[in-house]
Amino acid sequence: MRRPRVLVRAFAAGRATLRGGEAHHLRDVLRLRPGTEVEAFDGRGSEARARVVSVSKDAVVLQIDRPEARGVEPPIALTLAVSLLKGDKLAEVVRKGTELGVVRFRLFGCRRADVPTLSPAKLQRFRRVAEEAAKQSRRSLAPDVVEPTDVGEIPLDGAALLAAPQARTSVREALAGPSPDALTLITGPEGGLEPSEIEALQARGAVPVRLGPRILRAETAPVALAAAVLLPDAL
Amino acid sequence: MRRPRVLVRAFAAGRATLRGGEAHHLRDVLRLRPGTEVEAFDGRGSEARARVVSVSKDAVVLQIDRPEARGVEPPIALTLAVSLLKGDKLAEVVRKGTELGVVRFRLFGCRRADVPTLSPAKLQRFRRVAEEAAKQSRRSLAPDVVEPTDVGEIPLDGAALLAAPQARTSVREALAGPSPDALTLITGPEGGLEPSEIEALQARGAVPVRLGPRILRAETAPVALAAAVLLPDAL
Repeated sequence: MRRPRVLVRAFAAGRATLRGGEAHHLRDVLRLRPGTEVEAFDGRGSEARARVVSVSKDAVVLQIDRPEARGVEPPIALTLAVSLLKGDKLAEVVRKGTELGVVRFRLFGCRRADVPTLSPAKLQRFRRVAEEAAKQSRRSLAPDVVEPTDVGEIPLDGAALLAAPQARTSVREALAGPSPDALTLITGPEGGLEPSEIEALQARGAVPVRLGPRILRAETAPVALAAAVLLPDAL
Repeated sequence: MRRPRVLVRAFAAGRATLRGGEAHHLRDVLRLRPGTEVEAFDGRGSEARARVVSVSKDAVVLQIDRPEARGVEPPIALTLAVSLLKGDKLAEVVRKGTELGVVRFRLFGCRRADVPTLSPAKLQRFRRVAEEAAKQSRRSLAPDVVEPTDVGEIPLDGAALLAAPQARTSVREALAGPSPDALTLITGPEGGLEPSEIEALQARGAVPVRLGPRILRAETAPVALAAAVLLPDAL
């Protein structure tokens, strides 16, 4: 299980006593009890393991380990597998996905893809977009943009969810339970993946999830899915 | 409490017996019991109230009311309150927010906003973008794009969350418990809202939420927040 993250503004190794709103949050919202292991962070790039020592009406006391500089990578290694789209749509997916914390983009061809292939120049451009967006969003690593493969050959990193209009499972249901370390989100072209392509991905373990009755454009769906996975906890 | 939504492929008023994967989903994933009221939908635009009659190892039986044509509006009326941004950034926010199911955009000026005002021509353009995106995403209603006000005077429709880098509460924590009927998500300009502006919104009931250690651009944050609220359940 993931340790709860708690914000501790005055940050140093040793005992820390939290009062007021901070104590309220730990005690009444996170419902921490003595002995619980937590991840303390200061919101400015430092974090440390910590343990709840005591909980009372006025204060929560933590024992904090040595703080360490923290990367800004999310705890879940998220891959977006996106079908080839025309124009500049994939650059937008790469830019926004990078801001949100995606670690890898896998492009793929499929029967209804907008375009059949990707020029080496365009792949290079997407890699530059990933590097620039990583810098602007203060990430330590630029995500990888992998050369396109056919939809049948996309490597599935970790658990895999597949956007499918007729799916009965919601994203929340598909992700209930312990968070996976790695997750691949697969989205198709404007006309969707073909049923046989969906079945082949399911046979390899991908879980179809619904995105609701509104139609998302092919460049919106991957970014929205990434946000739905990464933003609620914002770690 | 919101009724669980269940997909029923053969859709008619009266008794419906679900077997196999559908029965498994209702029994073991949604953990429905006899008497539970549910919302049945067929994934093609019809829905009906229904009640679980019986649950067994082989089958789940539902009593289904008269099906009705269904809109595609989400059950939560979501407003995006977004600071004035330069160039075409707001058009992008309106387009993607509309696809995701936002019902209203409130634009606002603030001390660090990119631009001080919005021309009537540009407001008209955003309204056309909302109409076009509503049609493309098959929504019945185009969202409203309201004339800009100052940040101090944004009406807060329903509960309100405010994107704030130093906030300790996550979106998941802020939305724990029963879903509100209406929700306003507030995001600032590239440089953020000023502390006094944040305090004034808090005083009016807006809850600051963190968006994580990665920096989202001002046009990405509102869309990502809307996706984080609407997409996990995709209703």
